[in-house]
Amino acid sequence: MRLLLLIALLLPLTAAVGGKNYQRVDVMEIARNYDIMVADQDYDDDSDDDDNDSDDNNVHHYDDSCPPGCHCTPRVVQCSDQGLIGVPGKLPSDSLMIDLQNNDITEIKEDDFKGLEKLYGLFLINNRISKIHPRAFKNMNNLRLLYLSYNALTQIPADLPPNLVELRFHENRINRIQRDAFKGLRKLHVLELGANPLANSGMELGAFNGLSTLYVGMSENKLTAVPKDLPSSITELNLEYNKIFKIEVEDLIRYKNLQRLSLSFNQIRFVENGSLAKIPNIREIHLDNNALKKVPAGLSSLRYLQVIFLHANKISSVGINDFCPLRFGEKKNLYNGISLFANPVKYWDVHPGTFRCVGGRRGVQLGNFRK
Amino acid sequence: MRLLLLIALLLPLTAAVGGKNYQRVDVMEIARNYDIMVADQDYDDDSDDDDNDSDDNNVHHYDDSCPPGCHCTPRVVQCSDQGLIGVPGKLPSDSLMIDLQNNDITEIKEDDFKGLEKLYGLFLINNRISKIHPRAFKNMNNLRLLYLSYNALTQIPADLPPNLVELRFHENRINRIQRDAFKGLRKLHVLELGANPLANSGMELGAFNGLSTLYVGMSENKLTAVPKDLPSSITELNLEYNKIFKIEVEDLIRYKNLQRLSLSFNQIRFVENGSLAKIPNIREIHLDNNALKKVPAGLSSLRYLQVIFLHANKISSVGINDFCPLRFGEKKNLYNGISLFANPVKYWDVHPGTFRCVGGRRGVQLGNFRK
Repeated sequence: MRLLLLIALLLPLTAAVGGKNYQRVDVMEIARNYDIMVADQDYDDDSDDDDNDSDDNNVHHYDDSCPPGCHCTPRVVQCSDQGLIGVPGKLPSDSLMIDLQNNDITEIKEDDFKGLEKLYGLFLINNRISKIHPRAFKNMNNLRLLYLSYNALTQIPADLPPNLVELRFHENRINRIQRDAFKGLRKLHVLELGANPLANSGMELGAFNGLSTLYVGMSENKLTAVPKDLPSSITELNLEYNKIFKIEVEDLIRYKNLQRLSLSFNQIRFVENGSLAKIPNIREIHLDNNALKKVPAGLSSLRYLQVIFLHANKISSVGINDFCPLRFGEKKNLYNGISLFANPVKYWDVHPGTFRCVGGRRGVQLGNFRK
Repeated sequence: MRLLLLIALLLPLTAAVGGKNYQRVDVMEIARNYDIMVADQDYDDDSDDDDNDSDDNNVHHYDDSCPPGCHCTPRVVQCSDQGLIGVPGKLPSDSLMIDLQNNDITEIKEDDFKGLEKLYGLFLINNRISKIHPRAFKNMNNLRLLYLSYNALTQIPADLPPNLVELRFHENRINRIQRDAFKGLRKLHVLELGANPLANSGMELGAFNGLSTLYVGMSENKLTAVPKDLPSSITELNLEYNKIFKIEVEDLIRYKNLQRLSLSFNQIRFVENGSLAKIPNIREIHLDNNALKKVPAGLSSLRYLQVIFLHANKISSVGINDFCPLRFGEKKNLYNGISLFANPVKYWDVHPGTFRCVGGRRGVQLGNFRK
């Protein structure tokens, strides 16, 4: 009997442990970074003593105003993992960070965050949110970090806070981005849209109007080509695990600032000549796990390229000038990562001089050929 | 012949790939965070247009003033992975971040960073640095992040920049910290000392004088007890992979702000009654992979405790009140992670009510008993 009870009790719990595998966010660590950000303004030099026993005034228990299931410290309200089905009421009005990750919240209502005008970071990861009231984020002029990953949203919420710097929607159900969806988010640097059912046709012309982001993440979407309409300011673009089948010159012409491009796990058969010359600042390209039959043209002219992943393709020959310029010293940065394993190329057919512009202790990975 | 040449060429390269496994730092990502930090001050609202084609002025090639082996953008100088044996000369004087990780630098000389007074982050990870000139960091009043992990330092460098927020020495050869080693670092939040040959006796009394850090990392050292003299301000303490064999009340009395404590992979046989009551704000305790024979006393009184790892110990019985308070509703936060697997306790002897204060979808891990 006792055993049966135990099993009954443990089943849902153990299922949860092995369940939805979401990427936790360490809000304490972010809070430490927040402290970095305000370090200049925020330090009152009120103690010059070196006896470290006087710091006890750091401890606060806001128990009276702290909602059940939460732990409140002066800057951070932690309410993660409590099975909450809605945003708790009476959140302290001076909160800078609120951690609500891993609960069962289904909806964000108009007044859920009312009065939290100082809020800097809001973490709603891994809930079941499908509805956000259009005025839910009103007056949140200090909000910089809004993490909505692992929820059930089908579109980009309206009227996002104007000063957002990071906006994350990984693993939702977004299949359409309307024109001007992010308009007014002039400070946005990081836009994460990975693991949504977004096809190229799902992004309206002008969807990214007004943005000058540095990073866009669109892995695990339904893209068949590199999106041509992303902000031209991006330095990093993640397009892993899509269905892209070729790269054309037109695709990259806009992204002159790009430093890191990942196209791993697509179905790319060829890269049009001249495409890579459009991204002269590139430092790292991931083209592994595609269907390339040769090394893409133009690598040797990319002065800053250090990493090129080409493993798990169908490359059957490698030319002596595929990676390095003819004249020694022309390339400015040495490679430190070239991967060619799991290709049908025979390594004894690769001329050793092929890797003459690879750094001393750094690496080329050949071998482990796929049958 | 060609094959031999190739093997000769590849041997040192592949050795490097499989070699020293250091944790890379993504300086581009940190630079994005830096942009967050200066977001308020730094934005000139000079463009109100929505056509994203006018951002091309973001691209800069400081080629003339950029040292060989580096890639210079207005804020960030990237010189990683280039086999450099010294800090390059002529680093742009307006640099905010300099990435020199994964090179062969052995020494930091007096004038290596001269004139870099705006510098915010300096990344010297994975070099062979054993010597730093005492005046090398002079006038670096803006330096916040100094990463010196994976080098060959034997002591804490003298005269560290006064406004550091993060200071990292993971995997060096530091075996002694002298009194006042960090004196004056009033803003330091993160101090990483993991993987150094530091014993408790290696830290002089007053070694941490003047600090009010939030995080101290001392995993993989040679500690036999919890250090009693760390800053009382810490919210997180990592002591994994040491040789600590017991926890006494005195050990934790100082750390009232502690929210996360990791003691995994030590040799702890017992936790003295009353020890855990000294850390009332604790949210997460890792005591897995030790030699505990029972569940430590006092867990049920820790209102905010959500995670307690006890797996891989020698616990042979679990009491019904080991985790949860007698009166339901007394504990404020529910558990979401209790691990008990790989202990000799028989799961049918554990009363189901033992886990009455565990969150709904959250977890208890029993089972997988070690023989």
